[in-house]
Amino acid sequence: MKLLLKNCDILAADGDGYRWLKNAYLGIDGSVIDYIGESRPQADYDREKDMSSRLLAPGLINCHGHTAMTLLRGIGSDLPLQEWLFEKMMPIEDRFTAQDIQVGNALALLEMISTGTTSYSDMYFHADTAVENAMAAGIKANLCRPNQCFNQGETYAQNTRARESIQLFKDCNGMADGRIRIDFAIHAEYTNFPHIVEAYSADCKALGGRMHIHLSETKKEHDECVAKYGKTPARWFYDLGTFDSPTYAAHCVWVTEEDMALMKEKGVSPVHNPTSNMKLGSGFAPIPRMLELGLNVALGTDGAASNNNLNMMEEMHLAAVLHNGFTQDPTLMKPAQVLNMATRNGARLQGRSDTGSLEVGKKADIIAIDLTRPHLCPNIDPLALMTYSAQGGDVAMTMVDGRILYENGEFLTLDSDRILHAAKACADRLYH
Amino acid sequence: MKLLLKNCDILAADGDGYRWLKNAYLGIDGSVIDYIGESRPQADYDREKDMSSRLLAPGLINCHGHTAMTLLRGIGSDLPLQEWLFEKMMPIEDRFTAQDIQVGNALALLEMISTGTTSYSDMYFHADTAVENAMAAGIKANLCRPNQCFNQGETYAQNTRARESIQLFKDCNGMADGRIRIDFAIHAEYTNFPHIVEAYSADCKALGGRMHIHLSETKKEHDECVAKYGKTPARWFYDLGTFDSPTYAAHCVWVTEEDMALMKEKGVSPVHNPTSNMKLGSGFAPIPRMLELGLNVALGTDGAASNNNLNMMEEMHLAAVLHNGFTQDPTLMKPAQVLNMATRNGARLQGRSDTGSLEVGKKADIIAIDLTRPHLCPNIDPLALMTYSAQGGDVAMTMVDGRILYENGEFLTLDSDRILHAAKACADRLYH
Repeated sequence: MKLLLKNCDILAADGDGYRWLKNAYLGIDGSVIDYIGESRPQADYDREKDMSSRLLAPGLINCHGHTAMTLLRGIGSDLPLQEWLFEKMMPIEDRFTAQDIQVGNALALLEMISTGTTSYSDMYFHADTAVENAMAAGIKANLCRPNQCFNQGETYAQNTRARESIQLFKDCNGMADGRIRIDFAIHAEYTNFPHIVEAYSADCKALGGRMHIHLSETKKEHDECVAKYGKTPARWFYDLGTFDSPTYAAHCVWVTEEDMALMKEKGVSPVHNPTSNMKLGSGFAPIPRMLELGLNVALGTDGAASNNNLNMMEEMHLAAVLHNGFTQDPTLMKPAQVLNMATRNGARLQGRSDTGSLEVGKKADIIAIDLTRPHLCPNIDPLALMTYSAQGGDVAMTMVDGRILYENGEFLTLDSDRILHAAKACADRLYH
Repeated sequence: MKLLLKNCDILAADGDGYRWLKNAYLGIDGSVIDYIGESRPQADYDREKDMSSRLLAPGLINCHGHTAMTLLRGIGSDLPLQEWLFEKMMPIEDRFTAQDIQVGNALALLEMISTGTTSYSDMYFHADTAVENAMAAGIKANLCRPNQCFNQGETYAQNTRARESIQLFKDCNGMADGRIRIDFAIHAEYTNFPHIVEAYSADCKALGGRMHIHLSETKKEHDECVAKYGKTPARWFYDLGTFDSPTYAAHCVWVTEEDMALMKEKGVSPVHNPTSNMKLGSGFAPIPRMLELGLNVALGTDGAASNNNLNMMEEMHLAAVLHNGFTQDPTLMKPAQVLNMATRNGARLQGRSDTGSLEVGKKADIIAIDLTRPHLCPNIDPLALMTYSAQGGDVAMTMVDGRILYENGEFLTLDSDRILHAAKACADRLYH
């Protein structure tokens, strides 16, 4: 099926930046963009779709989260991170059934799809349920079975999580025309032991996997690692071979100059999670320095429990302003840089070279922003509108691989009423 | 007319905090709340309105902005403040006609009303046009004719801005059943001279006015004042008698401990503008310290040129998380405190003792949040939902003095198509 989107503004790729096309056309052949231009294409299309008053932009890529934690939204606000994690989150999560996790993930999909996310990276248990959900929803997902280990005596052969992770990789990586990818994952340095991490990292490298980790989120975690091992978490992972596979590292708030050099050497992609880092009092990640060093910085929401939403527009807005405030330099973060973090850098991080920008030959992973909203008027600079002015709710259409998943408030692949009802039932059971 | 809102959740006042009523009733007699409770009221109502899946909260009060600058949205992003202000903003503003300003203000009203603002404080020229617009829209507004003076030789008698300001106060203060209030305003220390400020402040006090100022927004401005006058801007205003009238001061990023003591002594209300202060690289206002001292901290968006929207939900979200990040203390800012900043503290700042919270006897200035949105599910803690999870676009209804101004995407008092068309025409003329 060939579809022509017409009469819309487009933020098309232009090298590493963007060019603004007005009253333009975007053609799609199956799942792939085959035309972008301000004049009508010569080729015939099976269907034409009027997109007047819409701005087409690349789909947003949420590179770090824990989707099922939507069920924990609003629980234990305002506690220190370790207390919040170990005394509130984990005891409730221990009561989560696979069914809860599937429902929590489905709720997250509703939220992400309706706010413009076309691909996401998740770190959570029972990823098989997330695979099912993503296939039904049509969204792209880099999923994993995260490795944690709290028993120092456990051997790698006894580490069932590694076996499950590898099995999941073998079973599901590349499913749904590549929309589903399975990554390896080590929750964090402080929730694991060197012999497990080393062996699991070697398996990841041998199998050609991609690694998802938490890195130096809090000062406590960073300092305790230095005290325990005489090295930073980044050096710890580096020495254990983790970074020998393509790796993405969430948070990176407390990484040192030397850590960033290691990350640069190994091509580790940092994931910036501005809301979570502020809300939990973790601090400000040195994102401007990372960008200066040429690291592939992407963007994520973290889980809804520490955000408390999965709204990439909000993360873009924060990433665009907070570093200016922190360094007192309003010229620091540029809208194009921020949109790159939310799109093409995320695609690179996920190993998806065929998406992340609007250009001919790329997958049709597209969002449409409703330019009729008062706060998007006048439209003098659409990049600034996307970065500073827009809300998640301004997304009027979300398309993945040429398929519309959401349009004008309606979900076309998910039963939102059923999911919302199920999520409330889970919360009622968990908290009452 | 007596109206009963039914079947809704309500964030009702409970002392300085909130209590959460479920499946509850809120009765309105004319413009005033006459019932709040979980059981059906005894009294009869002329009309009942089903508000299922809605959370009623107090209307948001945007305490500092420059509404007409919506027309400058996205212009000159990423410049240092003084350059942005003097080389970009002011030259364009010089070309603004009264008609542009009226259109820019109307555009701002659309945006504010649709994101839950029921009352706002503005500092801009041609406030007479904002008076007209506010009366038509039904919103509450504290407007002013701001005083700037760039000619040191000018006497107070020659200062036509002071005359216009006082005339506007005499003509319009208290109009529209008190919805329109006229305040006095001094743009800032660095845009005025002591003899003008002293005389104008004396007139404000004599006439029982209320004063709106910018205070220590940038380090440059703060330091230059100390270098020029040997005192901080707060001390400068204090010594010139400005603080002898009820005063509200935008930004307050660089106020010192002594400045905060002066503000406390005189009851000056700081207005926190988190997005603007971060975007422009101004820095982080010491809001937690102000709250600790018992200052009446309110919240504002600043103009759309430096934000780039007028979305109080976003300011709440930022105010709730950024100080945690800056101080590395996640327990610092509480949701109830943040909602107070956006509501009852703003009412106090504006001199409106009859609004700012949902309680019997207060004006029916109410917003309804749409709880069917995926990112507001589950509803375990509605205060946390309002502060951390909600978007401006989740506002399903905005009511002022018992009159619905906006509901489910429709403006009931303003012609949004006409205003958006006019705003685009203004922008086309100004920039092309």
